[in-house]
Amino acid sequence: MGKDRLAAFSDGVIAIIITIMVLELKVPHGADWTALKGLAPNFISYVLSFIYVAIYWNNHHHLIHTVARVNGYILWANSHLLFWLSLIPAATAWMGENFLAPLPTAVYGAALLMPAIAYYLLQMAIVHKQGTHSLLAHALGSDIKGKISPFLYTAGIALAFVATWISVAIYVVVAVMWLVPDRRIENALRDP
Amino acid sequence: MGKDRLAAFSDGVIAIIITIMVLELKVPHGADWTALKGLAPNFISYVLSFIYVAIYWNNHHHLIHTVARVNGYILWANSHLLFWLSLIPAATAWMGENFLAPLPTAVYGAALLMPAIAYYLLQMAIVHKQGTHSLLAHALGSDIKGKISPFLYTAGIALAFVATWISVAIYVVVAVMWLVPDRRIENALRDP
Amino acid sequence: MGKDRLAAFSDGVIAIIITIMVLELKVPHGADWTALKGLAPNFISYVLSFIYVAIYWNNHHHLIHTVARVNGYILWANSHLLFWLSLIPAATAWMGENFLAPLPTAVYGAALLMPAIAYYLLQMAIVHKQGTHSLLAHALGSDIKGKISPFLYTAGIALAFVATWISVAIYVVVAVMWLVPDRRIENALRDP
Amino acid sequence: MGKDRLAAFSDGVIAIIITIMVLELKVPHGADWTALKGLAPNFISYVLSFIYVAIYWNNHHHLIHTVARVNGYILWANSHLLFWLSLIPAATAWMGENFLAPLPTAVYGAALLMPAIAYYLLQMAIVHKQGTHSLLAHALGSDIKGKISPFLYTAGIALAFVATWISVAIYVVVAVMWLVPDRRIENALRDP
Repeated sequence: MGKDRLAAFSDGVIAIIITIMVLELKVPHGADWTALKGLAPNFISYVLSFIYVAIYWNNHHHLIHTVARVNGYILWANSHLLFWLSLIPAATAWMGENFLAPLPTAVYGAALLMPAIAYYLLQMAIVHKQGTHSLLAHALGSDIKGKISPFLYTAGIALAFVATWISVAIYVVVAVMWLVPDRRIENALRDP
Repeated sequence: MGKDRLAAFSDGVIAIIITIMVLELKVPHGADWTALKGLAPNFISYVLSFIYVAIYWNNHHHLIHTVARVNGYILWANSHLLFWLSLIPAATAWMGENFLAPLPTAVYGAALLMPAIAYYLLQMAIVHKQGTHSLLAHALGSDIKGKISPFLYTAGIALAFVATWISVAIYVVVAVMWLVPDRRIENALRDP
Repeated sequence: MGKDRLAAFSDGVIAIIITIMVLELKVPHGADWTALKGLAPNFISYVLSFIYVAIYWNNHHHLIHTVARVNGYILWANSHLLFWLSLIPAATAWMGENFLAPLPTAVYGAALLMPAIAYYLLQMAIVHKQGTHSLLAHALGSDIKGKISPFLYTAGIALAFVATWISVAIYVVVAVMWLVPDRRIENALRDP
Repeated sequence: MGKDRLAAFSDGVIAIIITIMVLELKVPHGADWTALKGLAPNFISYVLSFIYVAIYWNNHHHLIHTVARVNGYILWANSHLLFWLSLIPAATAWMGENFLAPLPTAVYGAALLMPAIAYYLLQMAIVHKQGTHSLLAHALGSDIKGKISPFLYTAGIALAFVATWISVAIYVVVAVMWLVPDRRIENALRDP
């Protein structure tokens, strides 16, 4: 299987995930400001999740770009990533419905942690096929962002039972940290 | 990242937005004319939003056609546009449920205003990369439609609290104004 | 705009329409045979609509295949077709919820009639650009199926207020009539 | 019609099926562990169905790869497969809502059995066009997995009325059996 097929299918699934998330923004029943304000937590959750999924789309695109051929491990590591990404809409809706409640905030953190781990496994599957002298292995370097994000998510999950706003702040900080596209791979592609 | 990838992902998201909007056309409970007539406001809102999203798809396609290579700014300006487009189904449903109520009509106007601003920023990101002597800069010329639309939407938002039918009329007028595909870019491509 | 783009966007929208239709198959509340049997009308409606949308996808693909370049008329005739196709899920759900009730059966007929008219207009827009000696004009020939279908749908709509089972029978007959892919275009392509 | 078009449309439909399935994971009303635990059966059902649809995507891709040209039989055999795949989300939701209840467990088995039969028919349509000396006929060989799966599903359906956990165990075993990508076709392609 060529990488184009894998990339196209993944793009399709990610495009659908990012779009159906808005179906969880339930239309309020009233037509006044009170009804609209009641949507604010759902809206904030939606914005955060939209940014996260957009980051994954962008970085996933760069990652697949480094792959020459796809084997079974890469295929299933990719499906595994898509599985966890597909749960983000549900976690977003639950956090939006119960804003700053401990358990939904922790579950949302888990919904961010699991794709991060899956993304790491996908990187490993690709590097394993290409060898440690590969373009991707070189591009990743020490991969600091990839390595500390899971710890930050874990901290967010734990702290949700202490003070939920700290958890939300951590999730926002990690999103901002990743908003810059992954220049490591871009640079390595330009200057191997 | 080549422009094809960006165009394909954007097309996917826009195709999903235009289609899931119909999920907000909730099936009426009864089976008689009264039940059907109750859907009329939702239907009118759906028609208007379908036309708007179709216009964005068409013009977005022409716009991306002028791009040679995509950088980080263009990428995020594009995601920003998709974000605001993704809110149109929710705003459509709210206006449909509460037809000619002031706040939903104003919010619908805001749901049209924000993608218009995002589209303008995307144009600026592309021109910025290409330079002011670029094909797109030349094609846009004075960009009268792009510049007056936000003012018309803003007028629609403000007038929703005075007479909602004027707002709806403004939204319809802007849609009609844009229904013609953007011949400026087509002409510039043909005759640079 | 090349035809590939138009075909890809249309395929995307049709793929979404055919799939979200299943979301209207509401999961029954009970877990016994009575609950399952209650789904039968929805299921029958779903099967019929799935076949109709699959026929449109297939024939639309053949139709676009004959197009060399897309102009504004073709573009909007295509969006117009997609608009009416997008209403089939809602009409299917309403007929499924109120099986053999006159008005939903008539509305379902209208939801089949409108895309048929839109498809005819799209054919005309393509022939108009290509001229009456074109491949498509030749392939269509007298276009008997395309010309009698709207009359059959109209009969189905009218007869829904007399005997709904006749309407449903007509809709089934038209689907069967179209199930064979459009060999006229295939033949004309092979033997111009 | 070339196979690329068929593959792209099928990929689109399968991407949507795998993603909208998550919409059936209804967000719980409460915000505590009881609410979360109540989702466990839905989650387990979702995981199983996600794996099944991912297996179909993967194997379908390999299958279409062997096709040179698409005829009407292949086209409709493919649509028939997509039809049955499109019912998996509804069957998953019903089993999730009524976990270990006999009828929903049997219906879920039927929702796995029907695509298996449809996949078999699609294989036959392809082999029929290519001849029994074809690449695919050679690759399939005795096709043991394809031949015993329907019997296992049928056993699962029947045993659901005796002990539902045996049925679920069978569905899991078949999924594991298929998790390995279809090396027969890969091998035949490499070494014809």
